[in-house]
Amino acid sequence: MNLSVFTVPVEDRYLEDYQTGAVYEFGAIQVTEAEIIKFGKRFDPQVFHTSPQAARETTYGGLIASGWHTAAMMMRLFVDYYLSSVASLGSPGVDELRWSRPVRPDDALTLRVTVTKTRRSVSKPDRGVLFSFIEVLNQNHEVVMSMKAVNLLLCRNRP
Amino acid sequence: MNLSVFTVPVEDRYLEDYQTGAVYEFGAIQVTEAEIIKFGKRFDPQVFHTSPQAARETTYGGLIASGWHTAAMMMRLFVDYYLSSVASLGSPGVDELRWSRPVRPDDALTLRVTVTKTRRSVSKPDRGVLFSFIEVLNQNHEVVMSMKAVNLLLCRNRP
Repeated sequence: MNLSVFTVPVEDRYLEDYQTGAVYEFGAIQVTEAEIIKFGKRFDPQVFHTSPQAARETTYGGLIASGWHTAAMMMRLFVDYYLSSVASLGSPGVDELRWSRPVRPDDALTLRVTVTKTRRSVSKPDRGVLFSFIEVLNQNHEVVMSMKAVNLLLCRNRP
Repeated sequence: MNLSVFTVPVEDRYLEDYQTGAVYEFGAIQVTEAEIIKFGKRFDPQVFHTSPQAARETTYGGLIASGWHTAAMMMRLFVDYYLSSVASLGSPGVDELRWSRPVRPDDALTLRVTVTKTRRSVSKPDRGVLFSFIEVLNQNHEVVMSMKAVNLLLCRNRP
């Protein structure tokens, strides 16, 4: 697969800079047992997220990250490397969020993002919509999570 | 709307205990400025999640929680009050996750869950699938987030 490289940094990136079909990879972010447990205790207190010992007796055979923790780590890479820091106007939501493999302590997660479509707004011509397909890969290049993202962005050339 | 009440606690809840059409409300969970900033700095470092001052100059007019932070708070209520702690086998993913309104410091979030369907597995008759529609409401009873959840659960009556 031929990976793309942005010609402009996130501080100067607008809707026009996202080209349909471009594929990027960013990362890695390191998963730690301590953060899995901390996140689990606060937000998702199921034993396979909070107790390495009790997790061994579950179907997962050991501690795994909350799916929402994996999503949050994905977002960190998405914001650091992909999403414009000057043109982003937020997101109405995501579709088809899938957790396809467990994420475990010491995994290293990378982000693969494909620009699937961009569309300029007719009613508000200073902005548009960016559609991206996001995959989170572990150190064995297995997909652990995927989703379809929608982001609102300002255009570089505004009326 | 007539709210339902579970007759069994999460420690003794199986697929059969989720009745299609039942609607539950749980919570509230309190949103704090400190946690919005902490979560934002670690996972979603956009200024409207990390800096109350800089957030005032954005389209949101002030600090708002990361959508992933809202999802994580939702999960805490989902695990504390709805999802079985003995029968849950995990989730393959969620669909149509929508962030419909900003979540701000001092909001109080409640969870409304509707059981939309359950289906016993044919190939693995000891388990089945629970489909739920989830809404997160703020203190003004406005929906701030919604999604369709899918959970795998063991049945009480297993072959």
